This record gives sequence, structure tokens and C-alpha cells, in this order.
Amino acid sequence: MMEVTIRETERIDELNGRGYRIIQDRDGFCFGLDAVLLSSFAIVKEGDHVLDLGTGTGVIPILLEAKTKGAHFTGIELQQDVADMARRSVQMNNLTGKVDIVTGDLCKAVEIFGKSSFSVVTSNPPYMTYTGGLVSPNERKAISRSEIKCKLSDVISQAAALLVPGGRFYMVHRPYRLSEIMVLMEKNGLAVRYLRFVYSSVDKGANLLLIEGIRGAKHQAVVEKPCIIFDKPGVYCPEITDIYFHEKLMEHGTG
Amino acid sequence: MMEVTIRETERIDELNGRGYRIIQDRDGFCFGLDAVLLSSFAIVKEGDHVLDLGTGTGVIPILLEAKTKGAHFTGIELQQDVADMARRSVQMNNLTGKVDIVTGDLCKAVEIFGKSSFSVVTSNPPYMTYTGGLVSPNERKAISRSEIKCKLSDVISQAAALLVPGGRFYMVHRPYRLSEIMVLMEKNGLAVRYLRFVYSSVDKGANLLLIEGIRGAKHQAVVEKPCIIFDKPGVYCPEITDIYFHEKLMEHGTG
Repeated sequence: MMEVTIRETERIDELNGRGYRIIQDRDGFCFGLDAVLLSSFAIVKEGDHVLDLGTGTGVIPILLEAKTKGAHFTGIELQQDVADMARRSVQMNNLTGKVDIVTGDLCKAVEIFGKSSFSVVTSNPPYMTYTGGLVSPNERKAISRSEIKCKLSDVISQAAALLVPGGRFYMVHRPYRLSEIMVLMEKNGLAVRYLRFVYSSVDKGANLLLIEGIRGAKHQAVVEKPCIIFDKPGVYCPEITDIYFHEKLMEHGTG
Repeated sequence: MMEVTIRETERIDELNGRGYRIIQDRDGFCFGLDAVLLSSFAIVKEGDHVLDLGTGTGVIPILLEAKTKGAHFTGIELQQDVADMARRSVQMNNLTGKVDIVTGDLCKAVEIFGKSSFSVVTSNPPYMTYTGGLVSPNERKAISRSEIKCKLSDVISQAAALLVPGGRFYMVHRPYRLSEIMVLMEKNGLAVRYLRFVYSSVDKGANLLLIEGIRGAKHQAVVEKPCIIFDKPGVYCPEITDIYFHEKLMEHGTG
């Protein structure tokens, strides 16, 4: 593996069984189950060109490169120092040329990359609406968590325009924003095909959703089997163990 | 119990532990788990005035009368003979005055009852879109199953107009129409509050959804814990047993 510079506040985490690693800032936003689930939910086929909107540490393109036969992976990230960290993770994993990190505003992604330039777009965007109130005192974390620099409507409209017809959009988000997501996807010509709710356990409300939208196609949404994280407290369900430790991709369909 | 006339093709089924019974047509559309789940999902408070759109055999108002302290229950049903059957079930259970069955077109429910005239509206509408093709050869069944006489957009727009501000709409439907439901509810000012997906087992895709919309209020949708029907083949989960045999109402919230 290539040697890269690690700053004082940074740490290196193992990403998967293949030995891929990622640089994260101890005080910044660290990737979570959300990104891992999204990279297992997304369908990336041989030859696909993939863009990740608001890529942060680059965890999604790096995981997708490991798990799929996609041709090329791009991540766009607004924050200069976070994008730099992602680029060093790409180098560290010897993925230069296969994964590119672009510093830029996802709200201008269509200007930067051009319309219909990707077959797959992914995003793990900020979840919380921002109304100008108090946010996390750490600015980097705040930008990752709240819609300070981009809104859900930006993510969805950019994704739709960036995709080729028939292209696929994958997003992880919070269920409380489901109505808004559905309305925005409909408005931007993304037909929901697969939708999966993630429940920390079978007796709890959903805390995440995984959604696929197809550009320009009529589709009947399939609400897939529930994704349950814990069998009992502290014990992952077999599916989650497989996803975390064995790079398993989720199966799709009516179940 | 009052004596009522039963026609040759009809049968009487037990409805609950309280001894309520319902008349159904052997060749017609018989109530199913859908109606039972909806009547357990709906929140009906003391003093509520409830309308059921497309009530069929009247199973939903009759079950809700048994389970809740609502003041009055109305069902509207287009098909004369089905409405007549529902009225005989009301008589048989001694619910005259408490449950009314009106023969009429739900698309004209606002004309019939007036705007803002109910605090709760429920519906178990036809699930299938109708494009003019072949439908069930039994016309009554066809009208109950396919959108021949009313569309999803009619159900939702009528419900919204019939409700008082803050009033609650409850519907059971198929997940494949979730996008349409969300878009129509948003358009008609019904904010989704609770949403629950029903899975025949934990390893299968959802086959029903239960949704609550509040008229004119901003709400953050809660996707409630999955409703699983079978623990193993042929064995109901405890929640379903409680709903079927002990008139249990579902609990709501984040779980």
C-alpha cells in the first residue's frame, strides 16, 4: 500500500476484509452503518460510471469499487480538507485512476460533469433540515449532518439530471422525510423501484430507508423485506454480519 | 340478536370475541386481514364521527364500533345489494343508530355529507388500477378490487375534504402504489404521520401498508415497527393473534 500523510487529528480505520482502509478525522463526521448499507443496496453493474454526491471521506466510492465491477467511481465533496482526506484514502488503497475525488459543490454537479454523464448516482446526504438555528459547533460535522450547504431537493434534482435515461439513483435517508423524498423523486422523473426500511430491531420503528429511483421509467415500487440490524442487543443479524464483514450485496426483489 | 333475512348465496361469519357477526356473499368480495388490520391501526377517540369510504359489507365501521368509543360510524357503499347486506349486518348486531350505511358513490361523498363533516375517515379501497382490460368476471368482486368506479385520487381528495382540520385519514393499500399515495396526500393537504408496512413474514417483501394522514398539519412521518403476520408458516405472530381474537388496537409511535 502506498504511504500517505496522516494529520495529527486523523485516524485510519479498516474498511473491509480486503484490507481497504479509510482516513477519518477524529473530530469530524465518521462514516457509519448508513454508508455501508447504501454501498450494499446500490446495484452497480460491469462498466457503470458512478458518482457519489457529497462523498465526505470517500467511503461509498471506495466500498463500491471493492464490491462491484463498475468501470469508474467519482465522489464530489464541497469541503476542501475533507476532499483532501478522501483523496489520500484513494491513494492509500491504490485506487488512483479508478476512484476520483472532485472538490466542488454538489448543487453545481450538473455544471461540473454535464447532463446524463453517469449510469449510477449515489448519495448519503445530510439528513436534518436546517432552519438557521443552532447546529453542531464543529462546522465540518454540521455540514455533513444538516442541510446548510445543500438541500434534499438539490440532491434529487442534480441526481436526476446527471443520470442517463434508465440510470439508477441510490440514497440512504431518514424515514421521517419519506413524503418529501417521494414527492421530489416524482417531480424529477425518478421512479421508485426498490425501497427498504432499516429497523434497529424488529420491535422498533424504522430509523433509515434505502431507496432506488430509475430515471424516466415507470416502475412499481417494491417495499423489500425489512432490514433488521440486531437479532438481540449487541448481536447483528446474519445479513448485517455478511454486509459488514463479507462484502455481501443485498438481494433485490419481492423476497 | 335481531333476526335478519339471509339470502341463499350469503353466509354469516363471526367477527370477534364480542359475538359480532357479518353477512357476506359467498361469491362476492369477502373481508380479509386488510380490513381487520385497518380497524386496529385507526385511532378513533371518544366522540369521533367516522366515515368509511367504500365500506362493502360494513366490516370496518362494525369493527370500529366494537373496538373504540367513537360516537357514530357511517359507511358509504356504491353497490345497492352490497349496501343492503351491510345494513342487515348492522341490524343483526343491534347497531342501528350507531352505524349507518348509506348507498352512494364515494366520489360524491362531499356532496352527500358536506365538507368538514367527519373527524375520522377510513378506507380499504380497490387496490388495482383499471385500464379497461379484463377484470374479474364477477362484477361485484371486480368493483371491490379494481378502480372501475373510483380511483385512488378520488378516495384521497374526498377524504381530505370530508375531514375537519386536524382530522385523521386511515387507509390500507398495496406498497407498489406508495409513491402515488404520498404524492396525492401531499397534494390534498394530508400530512403523513404514521406509516406501517405489513410483511407476511420477516424475510418477505411488504404486501400491505397502513397509512395515517392528518388534515392540514405539518407532521414528520414515523415508519413504525414492521407488522409481521406469521412467525412461521401457519403460526400468527402474537400481535396478529391479539388483533384477530382479542380486539387489540395497534400501538403507535416510534416504537
